[in-house]
Amino acid sequence: MTPGISRRVLLAQRPSGMVREEDLRIEQVQVPEPGSGEALVKVLYLSIDPTIRTWMNDAAGYLPPIPLGGVVRSLGVGRVIKTHTDRYNEGDLVMGMTGWQDYVVAGSGGPAETSAMEVLQAGTDPLVALSALGITGLAAYFGMVDIGRIVRGDTVVVSGAGGATGSAAGQIARIKGASRVVGIAGTAEKCRWICDDLGFDAAVNYRTDDVTARLREACPDGIDLFFDNVGGAILDTCLAQLAMRGRVALCGAISTYNDPGPPAGLRNYRILIPRRGRMEGFIILDYIDQFPDARSEMMSWIDAGRLKHLEHVVHGLDHAPSALNLLFTGDHNGKVIVEL
Amino acid sequence: MTPGISRRVLLAQRPSGMVREEDLRIEQVQVPEPGSGEALVKVLYLSIDPTIRTWMNDAAGYLPPIPLGGVVRSLGVGRVIKTHTDRYNEGDLVMGMTGWQDYVVAGSGGPAETSAMEVLQAGTDPLVALSALGITGLAAYFGMVDIGRIVRGDTVVVSGAGGATGSAAGQIARIKGASRVVGIAGTAEKCRWICDDLGFDAAVNYRTDDVTARLREACPDGIDLFFDNVGGAILDTCLAQLAMRGRVALCGAISTYNDPGPPAGLRNYRILIPRRGRMEGFIILDYIDQFPDARSEMMSWIDAGRLKHLEHVVHGLDHAPSALNLLFTGDHNGKVIVEL
Repeated sequence: MTPGISRRVLLAQRPSGMVREEDLRIEQVQVPEPGSGEALVKVLYLSIDPTIRTWMNDAAGYLPPIPLGGVVRSLGVGRVIKTHTDRYNEGDLVMGMTGWQDYVVAGSGGPAETSAMEVLQAGTDPLVALSALGITGLAAYFGMVDIGRIVRGDTVVVSGAGGATGSAAGQIARIKGASRVVGIAGTAEKCRWICDDLGFDAAVNYRTDDVTARLREACPDGIDLFFDNVGGAILDTCLAQLAMRGRVALCGAISTYNDPGPPAGLRNYRILIPRRGRMEGFIILDYIDQFPDARSEMMSWIDAGRLKHLEHVVHGLDHAPSALNLLFTGDHNGKVIVEL
Repeated sequence: MTPGISRRVLLAQRPSGMVREEDLRIEQVQVPEPGSGEALVKVLYLSIDPTIRTWMNDAAGYLPPIPLGGVVRSLGVGRVIKTHTDRYNEGDLVMGMTGWQDYVVAGSGGPAETSAMEVLQAGTDPLVALSALGITGLAAYFGMVDIGRIVRGDTVVVSGAGGATGSAAGQIARIKGASRVVGIAGTAEKCRWICDDLGFDAAVNYRTDDVTARLREACPDGIDLFFDNVGGAILDTCLAQLAMRGRVALCGAISTYNDPGPPAGLRNYRILIPRRGRMEGFIILDYIDQFPDARSEMMSWIDAGRLKHLEHVVHGLDHAPSALNLLFTGDHNGKVIVEL
């Protein structure tokens, strides 16, 4: 990093499928000067999330698309190195929408995307702040508790179970009294990890197993709660095995995010009628007011060794694009984070 | 009808697509003799519902399939003509699972399908009991209120809007404060009827209109509540136009019931995530305990002229199969009932 220079990764063109080199452009600019009411933040870690890929598309979502020529939007953690506001002190560790860049100006208000950041408690591990206690862990929490309405005795299935959200979702299900927790993942290593280290009862390898048959075996009374991170064919298969009054918490649909057009359709949706099923989507940003309470509950589980987390750290801003692609190839374990 | 003889329509083979003559068989048997605790009911009217077609398939549903050689299962209204129990008096008008036959024995308990019937209040119009106050009207009520959670100001879209359930659903939405009620139907006559007589704000003719464009025009702020009777392509189109926190009440999927295999898939399900949408199915039998309260509320609306109903009466037991097919061709207006 050249002193006085900030690198920024810009969206040069909208990707089709996986992100390629030519879709992005790295630009070097002067480190910005914070104005009154603002602070300068040196970015330390970037949270690499599937949703970033959706923001690169020119499609309406829960946030507007990243504009062409704009810095790639991303959650991250940084340190305040210069401040013109009481809101931030020099040395504070802050979390917010840093974007893929070396420096960012934090404001005191305005749209969540570009401005105010959250000051993390002294002593917080920034990796944990971005994984188990970050939006991935919080999505697992609210998806399981609020949307999935987990109750004691539920048979729970989680897709993307080797990922940051899925691995947390399965463990939260167990903590909340699920009688059976089954994970669907794409490598033998992930399947071993969730069963041996995280306490899942069974794992299904969707690349090598007959998913329908294995799920039937693992969930003989059907699925009470399906926490879905992937969409597509796996969602369809799980729908077919939904138990009476089964719930599907739609957290993401990563299997489809690289598709240029609409995905292959869900064929088993009609089962929601005889099974009195419910399928509901959610966006974690809606729960911001409840983050502190959820985090303190989750922190107590982490301290008690009941909620384990794993980070997959990639080094260097220029590797952010390949880190994002890891989410889609599945060649990672746990939460993908870029360390700058 | 020959005295002492009861005709019964049996399922001879499982239909593929529309019901054809060879799928059914009419048999003549002696009028059965009620035992102790039972009553003999002369069937007067049959409620012709899409769900009957699903019971003819060899597929798990909310009730078991009609067995081959079994009487076609159906809701109906009849009159008690002989009784060996205090539960029914001679002359009582009763409603229950009469099946497609001239006479049925009503019991005092046991499985809902074959046994106990509900005694209708003296003076009840049997046609209204089977339409607006029957399972079609009640499905509209509970789907709109309990599953759809209609609130004042909602933009509501109803598919199958010219049918018994859809026409009631739209009117109930209006009564409950919807700011905009749009119906999707398959003939110009139905579209006129729901707008001119039932007070819908707009109608979309799915056979002749560009459904996407017309819905966008009729629901510029998106669909808050979609009450779906048809499934398939119309459900997919409405999903794409769901408003933030939109709800889809899945009442039926009549567009797919004649399909031999699984239906074409829903492609727009992912929108449930950014829109925080909910799609939920229900079966009216779950609400039996709440029928009396719902009926008295609906009765007050009928009396006040706020809830209109229309019956399409077909005469003769041997026309029951063609009456069932009417539901799929759409060549009917309102609730299809067979008068014996």
